[in-house]
Amino acid sequence: MKLTAQEISDLLNGQVEGDPGVEVSRVAKIEDGEPGAVSFLANPQYTPFVYTSNASVIIVEKGFVPEQQVKATLIKVESPYSAFAQLLETYNKTKSKRKGVSSQAYVASSASIGENVYMGPFVYIGENVVVGDNTRIYPGSVVDDNCRIGNDCLICSNVTIYTDCRIGNGVTLHAGVVVGSDGFGFAPQQDDNYLKVAQIGNVVIEDQVEIGANTTIDRATMGSTIIRKGVKLDNLIQIAHNAEIDENTVIAALTGVSGSTKVGKNCMIGGQVGLVGHIQIADDVRIGAQAGVSSSIRKKGFTALGSPAIEYNTYKKAYVHFKNLNQMANRMKELEKKLKNLEELHGNQ
Amino acid sequence: MKLTAQEISDLLNGQVEGDPGVEVSRVAKIEDGEPGAVSFLANPQYTPFVYTSNASVIIVEKGFVPEQQVKATLIKVESPYSAFAQLLETYNKTKSKRKGVSSQAYVASSASIGENVYMGPFVYIGENVVVGDNTRIYPGSVVDDNCRIGNDCLICSNVTIYTDCRIGNGVTLHAGVVVGSDGFGFAPQQDDNYLKVAQIGNVVIEDQVEIGANTTIDRATMGSTIIRKGVKLDNLIQIAHNAEIDENTVIAALTGVSGSTKVGKNCMIGGQVGLVGHIQIADDVRIGAQAGVSSSIRKKGFTALGSPAIEYNTYKKAYVHFKNLNQMANRMKELEKKLKNLEELHGNQ
Amino acid sequence: MKLTAQEISDLLNGQVEGDPGVEVSRVAKIEDGEPGAVSFLANPQYTPFVYTSNASVIIVEKGFVPEQQVKATLIKVESPYSAFAQLLETYNKTKSKRKGVSSQAYVASSASIGENVYMGPFVYIGENVVVGDNTRIYPGSVVDDNCRIGNDCLICSNVTIYTDCRIGNGVTLHAGVVVGSDGFGFAPQQDDNYLKVAQIGNVVIEDQVEIGANTTIDRATMGSTIIRKGVKLDNLIQIAHNAEIDENTVIAALTGVSGSTKVGKNCMIGGQVGLVGHIQIADDVRIGAQAGVSSSIRKKGFTALGSPAIEYNTYKKAYVHFKNLNQMANRMKELEKKLKNLEELHGNQ
Repeated sequence: MKLTAQEISDLLNGQVEGDPGVEVSRVAKIEDGEPGAVSFLANPQYTPFVYTSNASVIIVEKGFVPEQQVKATLIKVESPYSAFAQLLETYNKTKSKRKGVSSQAYVASSASIGENVYMGPFVYIGENVVVGDNTRIYPGSVVDDNCRIGNDCLICSNVTIYTDCRIGNGVTLHAGVVVGSDGFGFAPQQDDNYLKVAQIGNVVIEDQVEIGANTTIDRATMGSTIIRKGVKLDNLIQIAHNAEIDENTVIAALTGVSGSTKVGKNCMIGGQVGLVGHIQIADDVRIGAQAGVSSSIRKKGFTALGSPAIEYNTYKKAYVHFKNLNQMANRMKELEKKLKNLEELHGNQ
Repeated sequence: MKLTAQEISDLLNGQVEGDPGVEVSRVAKIEDGEPGAVSFLANPQYTPFVYTSNASVIIVEKGFVPEQQVKATLIKVESPYSAFAQLLETYNKTKSKRKGVSSQAYVASSASIGENVYMGPFVYIGENVVVGDNTRIYPGSVVDDNCRIGNDCLICSNVTIYTDCRIGNGVTLHAGVVVGSDGFGFAPQQDDNYLKVAQIGNVVIEDQVEIGANTTIDRATMGSTIIRKGVKLDNLIQIAHNAEIDENTVIAALTGVSGSTKVGKNCMIGGQVGLVGHIQIADDVRIGAQAGVSSSIRKKGFTALGSPAIEYNTYKKAYVHFKNLNQMANRMKELEKKLKNLEELHGNQ
Repeated sequence: MKLTAQEISDLLNGQVEGDPGVEVSRVAKIEDGEPGAVSFLANPQYTPFVYTSNASVIIVEKGFVPEQQVKATLIKVESPYSAFAQLLETYNKTKSKRKGVSSQAYVASSASIGENVYMGPFVYIGENVVVGDNTRIYPGSVVDDNCRIGNDCLICSNVTIYTDCRIGNGVTLHAGVVVGSDGFGFAPQQDDNYLKVAQIGNVVIEDQVEIGANTTIDRATMGSTIIRKGVKLDNLIQIAHNAEIDENTVIAALTGVSGSTKVGKNCMIGGQVGLVGHIQIADDVRIGAQAGVSSSIRKKGFTALGSPAIEYNTYKKAYVHFKNLNQMANRMKELEKKLKNLEELHGNQ
């Protein structure tokens, strides 16, 4: 990839400030930028690097006005982060994609495989599986009987998809992801044993979902555990049976969503959050890291924090007082002493 | 599977109320129930669906008395959830099980393999491994040297069992489970380095244990990390070296049990709970989600919450006051002001 | 292995107290010790077992003075735990290591493989991969294109290393580890969708690092996610894109380090800790289990606890008052009542 500032600007629908003919051949972080590299400024914390960076081109926000001299050619765009994402994607697409089914893969004869598919060595494709066009399945992954995988999916290595699951188009599953494992359902018996409740449902993952490494999504007891269109899940997340995550919701690492809980659209859920079972979370809700949500959140756009989770700012304020509880306790002792003195004075009057 | 209400009732030792001849061929959630389906009512929250469901048969609790007309035939049983689990199991058993050892598996010549075993492609069975009858090992799983696996086990895909581990009968390991990885043992050295402590013990998993996807169980430094009979572990749980989980204890996802900690029988431990090392938890203890247990719990049946964990209701009550700490702080200021006024009045007297 | 007490003492640079000729052939926990076994006493909690243990040899601290008669031969050393680690390592090295490349592995013809290497069945080695001498890669692991792996590494089963990553010498990756998965980077779009930000960086793991089972380390957006020399990571940890963990830092299970966060040298981080993105943690910092660190810790050796994390003892003290908040609230009510009485008295005066 070799592009001029002008070519990049045209691609990103931006405006050039500086030399439009300067050429770049790679991307770099703004703090590491060297001649021949294109960088971007999205986080205001990094603004000082604009003046010190040796990058040839820097993508900045439309309204950015330099306060000192800048060596680089600037390209002004609506959203530098999105523009950069777009540029990286262009760069990434120049890499040729893998194709072909390895002779060391196992593909059941009843499976139906689309065009331009890649299946690496030690891939297992079970009976009646359908795999769409341009989908790539990396070494060591297992797609068990009756699964349907859409077009343009990327299934990284050592992924396991149990029987009967449905995966849409443009879905990415990172290494070690497990889709369709049994939900955690056991009926207590009188002798303290548990009777396993067979989990006969499946998992449905809609289009454009991305799921991080070693995340697990259990199949439904009956019906489906559903991950809706555009959802992004980070690594090491647990989604329990019959849960449903609605469109474009984003969840950070190590979070657990318990059974039958429904999370709305466009929510942002931090890392290590826990949601109990059988609750509903409204659209646009934001839940801070490590919160424990123990009841439904029905108010759209609500922000929550704490365990059990309460309104974000209420938690923050209460926590300030929590930190000072030792002083508060001392003030209370002082009050009690003084009041006792006053009472004695009165008793003496 | 096609069964009449009467046949189901006989199977479950129940009583039919309605048409005993109505036939069902599948199971469904009560809220989705359609003609030809059998559903169940276990959670009272779902009672309204009994009156609106189109399911042909609904399994209910013995004492259930409808408050409106019900279309479905009811089957009354002691425990609807257990009865349904039993029904699903019957349904599940009608599916034929996989058999045979794939020519694409690797089985060491010194391994001893029982009857009716399934080993999928890309399964690795090391030296001196013993696998019992009817055990199924799915594609991509690794059972390393000297392991012993009992009868009737299900080892799903991409599981890793390190050398020398012991697995009982009827054990299920879900995809991505790791059994027998090295415990986290490092001896600090004077130069800030750590010296690895070789972990020469193993893991013992007793009968009827089920372990969820991507859960990890470390081998003991010496001796055994032990998961006793009937224990059920959810997904993404960490069990450290030399820990011991006693019979029929149930642990939810993303919980960590640290080294040498012993958990009693019949405990229920929520999700994202942490237990420090070298402590004991008594039988029948319940630990709420996200609790951090930092010392032994010696009282049978104790319930704990919070981080560090304290008695459940004490935590709940304290948390109510925590939420109101801002007001409490204001009240304290008010008290201090008023008291000062009174004191000045006295000073003036 | 059959060694006399004297031979062990020589190996560990210790002093024998008792019969130097007694022979041992195995290691055992002090509480389980039987004749013919060598045990150690590191944790003072276990001191009573010195007097009851049937172990033939017990390794103790130099200054240990028995208060009762001891059956075993004692070996006195500087640090019993380190000495024992050293002994176990000696024992472990007597086991012969696996060698050879399985005919059921896939090794790209452009890969360069060192001497004395082991590659088990179903191992995948991509294009241009370089693997150093004496490195062992266990069944089912995937090392994708352009990775470089050093000498003397142990890569356990079902590990996935994505393209372009760098692994130093003497590194251990436990089963299910994922190195180089995409960082969680998505640029929000106006229609509530997210645009994937291509992650074109890599992961660099330096020498003598050990990484626990099912831990995930994401590749950098640009540049490298870096795990420095001697770092020890437990199981099920998430290290996000562009994070950096400095030398000899130790992190317990289920902890998450968010994007671009830098952790200093020699830190000790407990289990289930969360660190937000874009912060710095100084050297020698200790963070208690389940803490949530939401801003940089710049003070060397600082100890932190709580969510959000504050100074360790401040948290501990505040938590004592938190537990008593119910009583504090009652005392406040009492104060208000009494004060009101006094005020009324004054009003009446």
